[in-house]
Amino acid sequence: MTEKEFGLVGVGNALVDVLSREDESVIAELAKMGLEKGVMNMVTKAQSEAVYDLMGATTEMSGGSGANSLACFASLGGKGAFIGKIADDQFGEIFKHDMEAQGITLSAAIDTDGDSTGHSHIIVTPDGERTMNTYLGCSTNFDEGDVDVDLIARSEITLLEGYLFDKPKAKAAFRVAAQAAKDSGGKVALTLSDKGCVERHYEDFKKLADESVDILIGNESEIMALTLAENFEAAVKQVQEAGKTAILTKGSRGAVIVDQGKVYDIASVKPEKLEDTTGAGDAFAGAALYGLSKGMSPQDAGDLAAKVASFTISHVGARSPDTSFAEMFLK
Amino acid sequence: MTEKEFGLVGVGNALVDVLSREDESVIAELAKMGLEKGVMNMVTKAQSEAVYDLMGATTEMSGGSGANSLACFASLGGKGAFIGKIADDQFGEIFKHDMEAQGITLSAAIDTDGDSTGHSHIIVTPDGERTMNTYLGCSTNFDEGDVDVDLIARSEITLLEGYLFDKPKAKAAFRVAAQAAKDSGGKVALTLSDKGCVERHYEDFKKLADESVDILIGNESEIMALTLAENFEAAVKQVQEAGKTAILTKGSRGAVIVDQGKVYDIASVKPEKLEDTTGAGDAFAGAALYGLSKGMSPQDAGDLAAKVASFTISHVGARSPDTSFAEMFLK
Repeated sequence: MTEKEFGLVGVGNALVDVLSREDESVIAELAKMGLEKGVMNMVTKAQSEAVYDLMGATTEMSGGSGANSLACFASLGGKGAFIGKIADDQFGEIFKHDMEAQGITLSAAIDTDGDSTGHSHIIVTPDGERTMNTYLGCSTNFDEGDVDVDLIARSEITLLEGYLFDKPKAKAAFRVAAQAAKDSGGKVALTLSDKGCVERHYEDFKKLADESVDILIGNESEIMALTLAENFEAAVKQVQEAGKTAILTKGSRGAVIVDQGKVYDIASVKPEKLEDTTGAGDAFAGAALYGLSKGMSPQDAGDLAAKVASFTISHVGARSPDTSFAEMFLK
Repeated sequence: MTEKEFGLVGVGNALVDVLSREDESVIAELAKMGLEKGVMNMVTKAQSEAVYDLMGATTEMSGGSGANSLACFASLGGKGAFIGKIADDQFGEIFKHDMEAQGITLSAAIDTDGDSTGHSHIIVTPDGERTMNTYLGCSTNFDEGDVDVDLIARSEITLLEGYLFDKPKAKAAFRVAAQAAKDSGGKVALTLSDKGCVERHYEDFKKLADESVDILIGNESEIMALTLAENFEAAVKQVQEAGKTAILTKGSRGAVIVDQGKVYDIASVKPEKLEDTTGAGDAFAGAALYGLSKGMSPQDAGDLAAKVASFTISHVGARSPDTSFAEMFLK
């Protein structure tokens, strides 16, 4: 890989997380609204408000899947950038501040259509599971013109957030971003984000993955949805034979990294306590990409990622703004 | 005390806290801007932005001294209300949601002058000390017309937040609120809030305290500033002789409650860990007012307050949205 200015640039939704802990009775209320436990539910503005009404007092912090991975990458000492869309409001300001405060270069178009900055109402249940209810807000308007191709050209890896596929305009932006990465000799990483997201946009995901993606990121159900494999092992075999690099998580059972035709089993690291799984996958991806981009062996990169993800699970929220992962795990 | 609909109504600043942990080097930067460690610095909008720029990634949650006390009062099972001013923005929405989610009736005028909802940039240092940098925003416009006198008439105790004294309009609003409480046979509690605040408005504070206040709330330096006493014991004696009830905290050395001419020593409760002192005084006041309003002995009310304050110190932020203090300390 050529030495470029940025190790990783993310292209994704700029979101602020609005978190509270609730018991299962609130999950039952969500079910009545057609919202499922443990997944990312894409909600309308009206649904978003109804979910908020069900929640107790909340805590806010910057989120977004790709942005969380960048935060983790930066916390390990990597030089990162992020491309997204925010509105001229307080959530937009928070998102911008938190990225820049972590040393991440933000290229965010300011949307002027009147939509708010996107946010996700995240309900954490006593089992540590998180149920996300995301209102994309102005991220819906992210389009080709918002892709900072110059920033992508200056980055070794471009991380595309699968969630963006849910919007037609963003899908076009994705292709522009992938092309800019290829043209500049960079690599393209794609997070599958959500099984439902892959299923909703199967043909587009498949085409992008086959033609433009170097590094596939997902969990068991997501990679099975993409490969149409009957089980995880068969999915891994497909990825291996296609010559892709892949970062595939299996929840508490660890992960698998596929690289240069080889498969590496990564053991999970038991968290101090199971507090909140929000962002665990994002953190794993961010740390594994850091390791791989710094020339660590896939095994070492995976082991580092397992430690970082374990730490994330034992804390509330997707990010750990008070912690330097570099100091904690690289010394 | 007559049985009214609300046990406690607060009149104060509606704020959202923006928190981060920083080391002493950031405190040194604040000092260059004339901002002092460990106190509440009232800042301009420009200063507020400069402080934010010095901070790493942050977490947001509802705050405000009086509002924190109400949150604690409600968490113990008390029926509370709050009167303040918010703008039509996301911080205003967060403040409103968090109050109402805790069962607190909010009477908040929506300011339309273009100022944002007030916020406080709070820096927590490794010693657990918090340094607050508050930009009042639209709370500056809180005036007589915003005092919901009907709500006050329906409340047993009206809690006035001393910080409001920093604005002339709010000072007038204070007098209206105190009068409404008196007229309806309710009691008036006053938090002294900050030594500097008392010193800045000594004559007004003194007059209000002497003429209208039944319950004085403050820490050692604040009550000494108000009584001009040479030491804490002399200040306590003055309060005792004036026939006031007083809730006086001494940090890690416990507290004193004065009631009906008697002085009660309250031992502190060692926190599990010293995490963040933000809101400890607010929580102590809220819990002590809960106990006293429910007919507990001053000793029992103080012991309860010490436990709640200790819990608050061992967690980040002024509030504990995920915890029911009633379940934790009253069962």
